[in-house]
Amino acid sequence: MAAWSQRLAGVRGVLLDISGVLYDSGEGGGRPIAGSVEAVAKLKRSQLKVRFCTNESQKSRGKLVSVLRRLGFDISEDEVTAPAPAACQILKERGLRPHLLVHDEIRSEFDQIDTSNPNCVVMADAGDGFTYENMNQAFRVLMELERPVLISLGKGRYYKETSGLMLDVGAYMKALEYACGIEAEVVGKPSPEFFQSALQAMGLEAHQAQR
Amino acid sequence: MAAWSQRLAGVRGVLLDISGVLYDSGEGGGRPIAGSVEAVAKLKRSQLKVRFCTNESQKSRGKLVSVLRRLGFDISEDEVTAPAPAACQILKERGLRPHLLVHDEIRSEFDQIDTSNPNCVVMADAGDGFTYENMNQAFRVLMELERPVLISLGKGRYYKETSGLMLDVGAYMKALEYACGIEAEVVGKPSPEFFQSALQAMGLEAHQAQR
Repeated sequence: MAAWSQRLAGVRGVLLDISGVLYDSGEGGGRPIAGSVEAVAKLKRSQLKVRFCTNESQKSRGKLVSVLRRLGFDISEDEVTAPAPAACQILKERGLRPHLLVHDEIRSEFDQIDTSNPNCVVMADAGDGFTYENMNQAFRVLMELERPVLISLGKGRYYKETSGLMLDVGAYMKALEYACGIEAEVVGKPSPEFFQSALQAMGLEAHQAQR
Repeated sequence: MAAWSQRLAGVRGVLLDISGVLYDSGEGGGRPIAGSVEAVAKLKRSQLKVRFCTNESQKSRGKLVSVLRRLGFDISEDEVTAPAPAACQILKERGLRPHLLVHDEIRSEFDQIDTSNPNCVVMADAGDGFTYENMNQAFRVLMELERPVLISLGKGRYYKETSGLMLDVGAYMKALEYACGIEAEVVGKPSPEFFQSALQAMGLEAHQAQR
């Protein structure tokens, strides 16, 4: 206990991952990891600030939060830092109009973004949406640009679902990188800017947080 | 003319590429490139040995040859060096039983190969067959192997069809390489062994050929 309170000395907030930490995704919404529902509740009763930081890019934050609430977690949408809103920020700042290679479940995160006459590609974990035709479409958009910009929500290799291992967005990102001879910009963990934005939302500095 | 005959001095054979050199593929079988039908005919009337060397991995040699003959080319199946037969040779030599991530049009090239209880993955330009599900299946086979072996028929980035640019096998090879943390073995051009096997079939040494 002494070691634990020492470790927490000066810590004012906690950043929690979601998938594989709070719950395992899968058919029927997935299942909570033992003890995690109680741990979140306990943290929230404490003096510590709590925020959730995820690379989930197949579901919108709204959808993700509703799945988690159904599993018993005390969580709301504005407590979640996720790559899609971070990407929208970048798109707006740089005047980028994306062609979206994403899952339908996350498309709503881009509702406020102009996607006409695209001058970049934003890709996420599209799941079944990673068809040959959809990949070719994204590829052609990139090849028609003078300076191709590819933004990827995370660069995970794969993840586990109840039905088995699934390729993640990083694998398909590598395919487009190789075909176009470019390097993608990755939004999400492990990018320091991404963690920084989560801390900012908590009103904390890096040395005051524990993840 | 002097320069040309000088360049051909000592040359006893010619290796010809097919796609993009003899013809452009596409809907309805594609179209011959201007002058190529006559050039092949002329070469065949000369003293030079002629062989066709292709990375085509979406069609079997039989299918490819029938398309070319319909376009007017004087070509037979046993004049074609293609990656699928070269891969079969390797599979037999090393006792490998492949899971095939290939187009249905080329599956017949592997008729003599044992594909039960796979201990490697062979991938080719699968076209529409590059679905998320098929990619995941190949990925899972690799992840279950102690020493994953991935053999790729070529490593092209993309090619052009009448309907537009299409991602080639190399892009999907990179996706599996990244997800598994492995490097694929490439069968086909530009591998020296592949050119060597084409020359062998002509009974020539490298310095006696022109490509």
